[in-house]
Amino acid sequence: MNNMVTGRRKVGLWLIGARGGIATCVALGLSALRRGLIDSTGLVTALPEFQKLGLVPWGDWVLGGHEIRSTHLLDEAQDFARTNRTFDSEFVESLRSELEDVETRIRPGTVSGASPIITGLTGPEVPKNESPGEAVTRIRDDLESFRRKNELDHVVVVNVASTEPPVDAEKFPTRYDEFEAQLQRSPEGWLPPSALYAIAAMQAGCSYVNFTPSLGCNLPALDELARLQKVAYMGCDGKTGETLLKTVLAPMFRARNLRVLSWVGHNIFGNLDGKILDTPSHKQSKVATKDRVLAEILGYKPATVVTIEYLEDLGDWKTAWDHVHFSGFLGVPMVLQVIWQGCDSILAAPLVLDLARLTERAVRSGHVGLMPFLACFFKSPHGTKEHDFGKQFAQLMSWVDGLIAGGG
Amino acid sequence: MNNMVTGRRKVGLWLIGARGGIATCVALGLSALRRGLIDSTGLVTALPEFQKLGLVPWGDWVLGGHEIRSTHLLDEAQDFARTNRTFDSEFVESLRSELEDVETRIRPGTVSGASPIITGLTGPEVPKNESPGEAVTRIRDDLESFRRKNELDHVVVVNVASTEPPVDAEKFPTRYDEFEAQLQRSPEGWLPPSALYAIAAMQAGCSYVNFTPSLGCNLPALDELARLQKVAYMGCDGKTGETLLKTVLAPMFRARNLRVLSWVGHNIFGNLDGKILDTPSHKQSKVATKDRVLAEILGYKPATVVTIEYLEDLGDWKTAWDHVHFSGFLGVPMVLQVIWQGCDSILAAPLVLDLARLTERAVRSGHVGLMPFLACFFKSPHGTKEHDFGKQFAQLMSWVDGLIAGGG
Amino acid sequence: MNNMVTGRRKVGLWLIGARGGIATCVALGLSALRRGLIDSTGLVTALPEFQKLGLVPWGDWVLGGHEIRSTHLLDEAQDFARTNRTFDSEFVESLRSELEDVETRIRPGTVSGASPIITGLTGPEVPKNESPGEAVTRIRDDLESFRRKNELDHVVVVNVASTEPPVDAEKFPTRYDEFEAQLQRSPEGWLPPSALYAIAAMQAGCSYVNFTPSLGCNLPALDELARLQKVAYMGCDGKTGETLLKTVLAPMFRARNLRVLSWVGHNIFGNLDGKILDTPSHKQSKVATKDRVLAEILGYKPATVVTIEYLEDLGDWKTAWDHVHFSGFLGVPMVLQVIWQGCDSILAAPLVLDLARLTERAVRSGHVGLMPFLACFFKSPHGTKEHDFGKQFAQLMSWVDGLIAGGG
Amino acid sequence: MNNMVTGRRKVGLWLIGARGGIATCVALGLSALRRGLIDSTGLVTALPEFQKLGLVPWGDWVLGGHEIRSTHLLDEAQDFARTNRTFDSEFVESLRSELEDVETRIRPGTVSGASPIITGLTGPEVPKNESPGEAVTRIRDDLESFRRKNELDHVVVVNVASTEPPVDAEKFPTRYDEFEAQLQRSPEGWLPPSALYAIAAMQAGCSYVNFTPSLGCNLPALDELARLQKVAYMGCDGKTGETLLKTVLAPMFRARNLRVLSWVGHNIFGNLDGKILDTPSHKQSKVATKDRVLAEILGYKPATVVTIEYLEDLGDWKTAWDHVHFSGFLGVPMVLQVIWQGCDSILAAPLVLDLARLTERAVRSGHVGLMPFLACFFKSPHGTKEHDFGKQFAQLMSWVDGLIAGGG
Repeated sequence: MNNMVTGRRKVGLWLIGARGGIATCVALGLSALRRGLIDSTGLVTALPEFQKLGLVPWGDWVLGGHEIRSTHLLDEAQDFARTNRTFDSEFVESLRSELEDVETRIRPGTVSGASPIITGLTGPEVPKNESPGEAVTRIRDDLESFRRKNELDHVVVVNVASTEPPVDAEKFPTRYDEFEAQLQRSPEGWLPPSALYAIAAMQAGCSYVNFTPSLGCNLPALDELARLQKVAYMGCDGKTGETLLKTVLAPMFRARNLRVLSWVGHNIFGNLDGKILDTPSHKQSKVATKDRVLAEILGYKPATVVTIEYLEDLGDWKTAWDHVHFSGFLGVPMVLQVIWQGCDSILAAPLVLDLARLTERAVRSGHVGLMPFLACFFKSPHGTKEHDFGKQFAQLMSWVDGLIAGGG
Repeated sequence: MNNMVTGRRKVGLWLIGARGGIATCVALGLSALRRGLIDSTGLVTALPEFQKLGLVPWGDWVLGGHEIRSTHLLDEAQDFARTNRTFDSEFVESLRSELEDVETRIRPGTVSGASPIITGLTGPEVPKNESPGEAVTRIRDDLESFRRKNELDHVVVVNVASTEPPVDAEKFPTRYDEFEAQLQRSPEGWLPPSALYAIAAMQAGCSYVNFTPSLGCNLPALDELARLQKVAYMGCDGKTGETLLKTVLAPMFRARNLRVLSWVGHNIFGNLDGKILDTPSHKQSKVATKDRVLAEILGYKPATVVTIEYLEDLGDWKTAWDHVHFSGFLGVPMVLQVIWQGCDSILAAPLVLDLARLTERAVRSGHVGLMPFLACFFKSPHGTKEHDFGKQFAQLMSWVDGLIAGGG
Repeated sequence: MNNMVTGRRKVGLWLIGARGGIATCVALGLSALRRGLIDSTGLVTALPEFQKLGLVPWGDWVLGGHEIRSTHLLDEAQDFARTNRTFDSEFVESLRSELEDVETRIRPGTVSGASPIITGLTGPEVPKNESPGEAVTRIRDDLESFRRKNELDHVVVVNVASTEPPVDAEKFPTRYDEFEAQLQRSPEGWLPPSALYAIAAMQAGCSYVNFTPSLGCNLPALDELARLQKVAYMGCDGKTGETLLKTVLAPMFRARNLRVLSWVGHNIFGNLDGKILDTPSHKQSKVATKDRVLAEILGYKPATVVTIEYLEDLGDWKTAWDHVHFSGFLGVPMVLQVIWQGCDSILAAPLVLDLARLTERAVRSGHVGLMPFLACFFKSPHGTKEHDFGKQFAQLMSWVDGLIAGGG
Repeated sequence: MNNMVTGRRKVGLWLIGARGGIATCVALGLSALRRGLIDSTGLVTALPEFQKLGLVPWGDWVLGGHEIRSTHLLDEAQDFARTNRTFDSEFVESLRSELEDVETRIRPGTVSGASPIITGLTGPEVPKNESPGEAVTRIRDDLESFRRKNELDHVVVVNVASTEPPVDAEKFPTRYDEFEAQLQRSPEGWLPPSALYAIAAMQAGCSYVNFTPSLGCNLPALDELARLQKVAYMGCDGKTGETLLKTVLAPMFRARNLRVLSWVGHNIFGNLDGKILDTPSHKQSKVATKDRVLAEILGYKPATVVTIEYLEDLGDWKTAWDHVHFSGFLGVPMVLQVIWQGCDSILAAPLVLDLARLTERAVRSGHVGLMPFLACFFKSPHGTKEHDFGKQFAQLMSWVDGLIAGGG
């Protein structure tokens, strides 16, 4: 392959939820980076620390994905701009040809095992009543075709689809051969879509990153599959806003021995993710992941309330009010309040690009399986109990420094 | 000395500003800790990490200090409780005998070189028109007498007096012999009180910690003196509230490559420190120290505003509103706002106790001179440019772990 | 009666929930007013506008009430002070004899028809399994005895007990004779306690004010009873904090033709009322009353979220965060956020005293039945759709001015 | 004139500061209203209460103005949209022809008597060293020409230029004939531009509204001139954001007899007005007008701090944090905090349109001189001490109702 000859790698980023808010911002951002229309603000891998790591430049990434809704990326981008006043319609228009190009690489996703609120969003091109086995085969074929047609050295699949209801991971076989056998003979509903995508990705030799709190790759059998296939994986749930703040502020209370009495976090926003989360079963996954970090950082469980409310008028602007009631010396109670007004997809998109780049780099260096050194990107990082953002970032830096030093 | 025989150390904590808000809370807290009336919330050295360090227990500390105002510690404590509703008058009353005991060890301070707003607070027992040399001699005598009478192994002097106007440190001789010579022949005004106390402390063999942004020990000649006298020192300006938050939040923006456009911090409070800071020349020292940290953490200077306003009705309750305007991916501006409602002296007091304990421990392990490993306690830590609170705390942990491992 | 001879009136205030947070603050406040220990801050009727109205002075009010919990007013007051740091224990102690005096006039309440969370709080002195008829008779006897023993010219009963679940008021007879007949033969559960107290009060010739969102006097049959008995009544749900703000801010948006897109209100607090409201059926009554006001002021219904969360550590300090997303000229969206940190019982107590005084004055002037001119005190004022606080206050002023002018 | 025949009036709105932020939004808004591109949100006169008043419809208004900077309205509009993300560039582009049309009616303003920071902004087309007399003559000629060419029945001049430093109004003659005589012989600097425009406007038979805290029409001599010329006038300083909130919230504290201990208001923003206000002498006018309202509503003067800080990155988005510390019953202190995030020019623009419409209507009904019934639009309304927004709005409604009833 010519990539090998030239030493230059051409790689793929495949998004599950390819016309959603995050994916739209990824597509806009990747196109704008290539065209030099924006600077690298928001991209962790653009920091000086990462410059000697030999990451694949933005120009060598090809974008594609699966999507269940019948829309167009360009319309989604215009809608996003209009609703959220994040950028001008002219800016979106100037990237029309790039977005239309990405659009040609978006394939119908699967709703095999999805909840009614998700299947209700589906376009006619999405197959109905797919069994888990059929879904995995079809998705895997799409991924292999994407890699072959675009002559890609590696593909990273990132799940940026809506949050699914919680699933009891204990009920699945832990050995991959048993798991695969059950998958083939089980009816629709045995596994949620996020896991079907993860299996298909790994079978196709792609790495997989779960940016949502859905099940995804979080199964022992899939860890075995990843090692068999020599791919990397990580999750779950991108740490973009309020939870990022919690994992930055809670260590301060811990280090000062200030006792957190209660920590209340109210989140309001109005994008599609928020609409799905308005369904109680879906919301449960999210609240759990947002709530867990405090006890693990503080070493005790303060009273907590976490709410996520859907208010359509707020669009992608997630506003969070956190009220922290804590006790200081001599038992004196005090208060810290934080108000976060962030555009959720804009915060998430660069992290998706960073994760794709870092995952590709890990695989290139020979890493297989779980990537706990990427913990700083996740609300519920697999394979680690470290939630302190500063320490997580230091761990990432250690891995980076090791690679640079070792020439990996 | 019997301390040597038993292996148990008896040590002194000497406060400059011994009846001020912080000192009052230190006296109440130390008494209450000894009597088992409060738990150790707010004390960093009560964290598990410090338990093998062999720190001097609270029962073995003797408290004394210098003060320029003619009040009584018990009245100050009752006033503090009444004004700030931090604890009940009964609680203060229950510690009456302890506070009266401390009161016997409070000596008249010096206002040699102080500004008019400070000298205006002075009681009749405080000498007028002291020359720098006279002041140093008198203070040193007080400290030596304190140590001798109480049979103390070591004394740590901590400056918790009001903030002084900025002083140009460049104008002083850098060699101690020249400095001392000039000191002896200079009239009142050559040095501000905070530095006179520092010199007297070191001459008396005491360590010195500057918890304020005043000049204090921040002079090359005093570094030489500290080494000659084999004492330790550190400063400056205790990091208790809004600046603590800045040094916790700014690293997050840096690590996520989010560009801070402007950072506005408005502080309002009404204690005596606030009243003194209401004088523009005094305020200048404080604003500088609060403002500097951002550029050093971020690597660039965002637009900043820092105000400190005196509102008598707020008492010791310092409320700070921080508004951070930052830019994310694709140039989208977002906002983080933080509201801090903390009782300033209550936040400071345990850190003073921690610093005394850690300084004594450093000296006992043979450390002399500057203690940059204590940076996490200060807004403007001497001897380091590291302002990231997480990294500062990690440095403290390294020092602690080294001492424990080395049996220092 | 000697009151008639002297022209001086002696009147009674009877509280349902007589040892709860509000009642405790009423007892403390009334005692302190009499003793001249506090000024009149927080009392509406202390404003200059009310000074010619001939209101009964605080010294001529006698306090009593019903309570279902077996505690003591003095303990409740000490607990309240300790938990909420509102006043010093010395202050409470100084009012010991007054509180003990009130305590002698507190009688066991009824839990006939109460929900399990309420009956679970009951002391042994409270009768079990009272039928509605028995409860009314017993309560009425208590009220008549209170009036007789204390030689009172009039008694105002104010309900400050915990919020009850919503009740369908439609199911009750609208004529009082039919209502009374059903009451006598119905088993426990036919009516909630708040209504039993209202009936008993009116039967005993007392006026009744419902400071909670419970059913209380809000029944057509009770309106008839009030007129028969020549007493006055009003409700419901005291407007103390967040809703007060809503009815002050919403008229501004309306008058400036700014379109409210969404109004989110999150309330957190930790007193007994909050604990009861943590039971979903009870919370429903409160959320409804807090949510309704916006649509009636604005003339359209914006998206709204109202939450009330119980966090024990916050005690009586109700903190509310309101986020108002609104659209201005040219369709530009903007944001107003309000954070309210108020001590709920302290806000409510003076309004209870004001309502007692104004109700007594209304009855004295010959007013019977509903008192819509008191709307400014209530979240859901009976007999009016006016929720704009400014207009409600103007209506109160009209009534006051009318009385003063007419010599009523 | 054909206007008289048809009964339809054609009227003019002339803006001082015709290419500034407010004027740009007025031009965009008026154009968009005519074209039916926006609804009437933000316009007070679009409320149902005003519909029978016979106000001049938006289609019958002609826009013009004076400006000292050499820019173009279209560029200003595009810059405004880009900087503040208030509307899309496509929206501005769709109004290109309307804006170009307004541009033809913008004339060079005067900087006679302006401060250096203002004269530094001046384009070459603006005359240098104009004496007051020359400036008035030139401006008056412009206004008369505007009216004549466009066959206007009446013209309302509104000052939306930058805030000027305070002027001592006492030093000017109070009789118009003396004032005029002095004007003619005085050198540049005798009067600031805002007053020169007011004189010229009145001399030309135009009404004048001062939307800024500058001197403008606030002189006894000009009151006489207005009556002579049968024109109306009003000021000063449009009440758009933080001060509007103060005049809505302060009456609540007053009506509840809650004692405001301190009220702190910090304002940050980055538009041209903010840049000018960053000059201390200019800022003084603004702070005074923002600070005065509280004492007049509350009846006493609480401690206050008002700051206005220029932060370029915030553009037209004025963010204000208000911290209100107040005391309730039993002396318990509580806190209300308000955060306002409003786009200043977008808030101001519809009020300018409302004021023009209402002023024209007042003149048409025979009103001359001061218009105190418009107080609700101003921070420092001339001719009234009423600052309570609700009462001010009620006064406006009385005037409206009077006109409708009287057929004026």
